[in-house]
Amino acid sequence: MSEPPPAPLAARASPRLVALSGGVGGAKLVDGLRHVYPPHELVVVANTGDDFEHLGLPISPDLDTLVYTLCGLADPQRGWGRAEETWACMEALAALGGPDWFRLGDRDLALHLWRRERLRTGLPLSSVTRELCARLAIPLTILPMTDERVATMLDTDEGTLGFQEYFVHRRCAPRVRRIFFEGVDEARPAPGVAEALASEAVSGIVICPSNPYLSIDPILAIAGIRDALGRSRAPVLAVSPIVAGEALKGPAAKLLRELSGASSAYEVARRYAALIDIFVLDVRDQGLRTQIEALGMEVLVTDTVMHTAEDRRRLAAVLRGHLEPG
Amino acid sequence: MSEPPPAPLAARASPRLVALSGGVGGAKLVDGLRHVYPPHELVVVANTGDDFEHLGLPISPDLDTLVYTLCGLADPQRGWGRAEETWACMEALAALGGPDWFRLGDRDLALHLWRRERLRTGLPLSSVTRELCARLAIPLTILPMTDERVATMLDTDEGTLGFQEYFVHRRCAPRVRRIFFEGVDEARPAPGVAEALASEAVSGIVICPSNPYLSIDPILAIAGIRDALGRSRAPVLAVSPIVAGEALKGPAAKLLRELSGASSAYEVARRYAALIDIFVLDVRDQGLRTQIEALGMEVLVTDTVMHTAEDRRRLAAVLRGHLEPG
Repeated sequence: MSEPPPAPLAARASPRLVALSGGVGGAKLVDGLRHVYPPHELVVVANTGDDFEHLGLPISPDLDTLVYTLCGLADPQRGWGRAEETWACMEALAALGGPDWFRLGDRDLALHLWRRERLRTGLPLSSVTRELCARLAIPLTILPMTDERVATMLDTDEGTLGFQEYFVHRRCAPRVRRIFFEGVDEARPAPGVAEALASEAVSGIVICPSNPYLSIDPILAIAGIRDALGRSRAPVLAVSPIVAGEALKGPAAKLLRELSGASSAYEVARRYAALIDIFVLDVRDQGLRTQIEALGMEVLVTDTVMHTAEDRRRLAAVLRGHLEPG
Repeated sequence: MSEPPPAPLAARASPRLVALSGGVGGAKLVDGLRHVYPPHELVVVANTGDDFEHLGLPISPDLDTLVYTLCGLADPQRGWGRAEETWACMEALAALGGPDWFRLGDRDLALHLWRRERLRTGLPLSSVTRELCARLAIPLTILPMTDERVATMLDTDEGTLGFQEYFVHRRCAPRVRRIFFEGVDEARPAPGVAEALASEAVSGIVICPSNPYLSIDPILAIAGIRDALGRSRAPVLAVSPIVAGEALKGPAAKLLRELSGASSAYEVARRYAALIDIFVLDVRDQGLRTQIEALGMEVLVTDTVMHTAEDRRRLAAVLRGHLEPG
C-alpha cells in the first residue's frame, strides 16, 4: 500500500476500441485484442452484476478473470481463479465448519484481501481496479460497468436466487424465468465508461462472446450505456457466444432455451438486433448467415473458438481487419 | 456455519482450576494441566490486549496460540500460527504491494476469516471462542478476558506504539517506559470470568509463566479481576516466566530490565507479591528462594522449563500435587 497511485484515466491515450465483457470468453478475446491493438488504447467495460461478498471479501468474478487472464495468471482449465493455486485455507475453513461452497484459492484470497483494504479507504471499485492493473503491469484500461452495487438476480422455478447461489451453489440447475438487476436503476456508469463510449477516437465497440443475459445485459442496463452504443458513430460488433447451438462455457445455451425458446447464434443476434451493426458468426454456424443478415446486420463469418493463445490473436486480428480495413 | 452452537457455559461442569494465560508459555502449561485435571473442569482466561485487526481480520494472538496448542495444531518451533503451514496468500499479497509484515499462514487465515464471519453475526468474542473450541473438540473452557476492545500500548523512546507495532514490526527493539491498556476502564470481564474466579469449587488459580507486563497485567487490569483473585479462598499460584534471568520466549526479561531495573524471578515475584500465595521458582533459580519467601509467599521449586509434552505434564502434576495434596 506504499506506492503512489497510478496515473488517472484522463492522462491515458484516447480509447480506440471499447469492449464489453463478462468472464472467460470475454477475457480470451480481450487477451487477443491487446496483441493486435496498442494495449493502452483498449478500454474494457466489465460486468459486475456477479459481484458479491463472501467471507466478508469483495469478489468481482469477471473483473478478476480479466485481470488474471491479462497478466497470465489465470487457470487455463478451470475458467476462474489462478493457475497453480493451492487450497490450504479452504480446507482449514471446511474443517472449522465454515462455508466452503465458493472456493477461494490461497493466492486468489490475497487479491480479495487487498481489494477490501483498498475499498475500505473509501476508493471506488474503478479506482481500485485501475490501481490493481497498474500493480500487475496490465496496460489496458479495465473499468467496472459501475461503482455502485448491482446484483444479478434470477427468478427460477426454485424461487429468486442471487447469481452465485444459482451459478455456483445450484450449478445452474434451476429453470430460469426472468433475470433482473437489483440496484441497476440507481447505478451510474463508472468514471470513464460513458467517456470511452462517446469518444470520437473509437473505431469500434465490441460485445465480447460473453453470456448475453448474465454478462452483457447487466452492462447494457446501466443508465446511458445502451443509448451510448446507439449514438456511437463507431460500428458496434458482437461476437457470438453460441457455436453450433452450445455455449463453450457456462449456462448461455440453457438460458437461451429457457428464455428465448431456442439456443442458437440466431437467437443471440436477434437479442442484439437493435444494438449492433456487425455480428460475428462462427464458421460452424454459417448456415445461419442469411437468416441473421435478414435481421438487418452485417455478418462476419470466422472461426470464433479460442482454444489457444494463437486462436485469440487470430480472431482479434479478424475483428481489427474488419473494423479498421486498409 | 450450519451446525448448532455449542452448549452454553452454564451447562458445563464447575471450574476446578482457573488459569490466567498469555500465549506460548501459558499455552504449554495449560496443555500440561489438561492432562492432570479433568479438562472440562479447567477454565483459561486469556489475554486479549494483543488483539488487533489486520487485513480487516480479527487476530487474537493469545487465544489462537491456546487453541492451536490445545488441538495439536500449533507450530512447535515458531511459537505462533499453525504447524505445516504454507504462505501462498502472503506471497501473492506481497506481489500486489499489500502489507505482509504480519504473516498470516494460509491455514491460519481460515480461522480469522471464520471468526470474522461469526463476529459479524453479532456474537461476542467469548461466544465465538466457545464455538471454536467446540468445533475443534477442545474440552476446556477458554475465555477471553473481556469481550470489549482493550489494546496494549507501549510508551517507548520511539513514541507510543501499539503492541503489534512494537512486537512484530519493531521486534521489541524500542526501550519501553510505560505500558497502558487502552479501553480497559470501560471493559468488563467476559461472561464466565468473574463466575469462575468466584466459584467455591475452585481449588487453585494459576498465573501461567506468561509475560507479567504484556500478558498478565492486561487481564488483572479488567475491572474486578484483581479483586477477585484477592477474594478467592483458593490459593493463587504464579509460575515464574523468568529462568536464570531470561525469558524462554519474548521480551519479558527486556521489559523487566527496562521497567523494574533487573530481570530475575525475584522481580516477577515482587510484582505479584500482593496477589499470590505461592510462587513457582525454577530449580535453576533456587538461590532466590529465601529472598522471595521474604516477600511473604510460599515458594515451590521445580523444573519449570517445558521443552517436551512430558515436561508440560510433569510441571502440571507438580502444581496439582501442591494445590490438591493427598
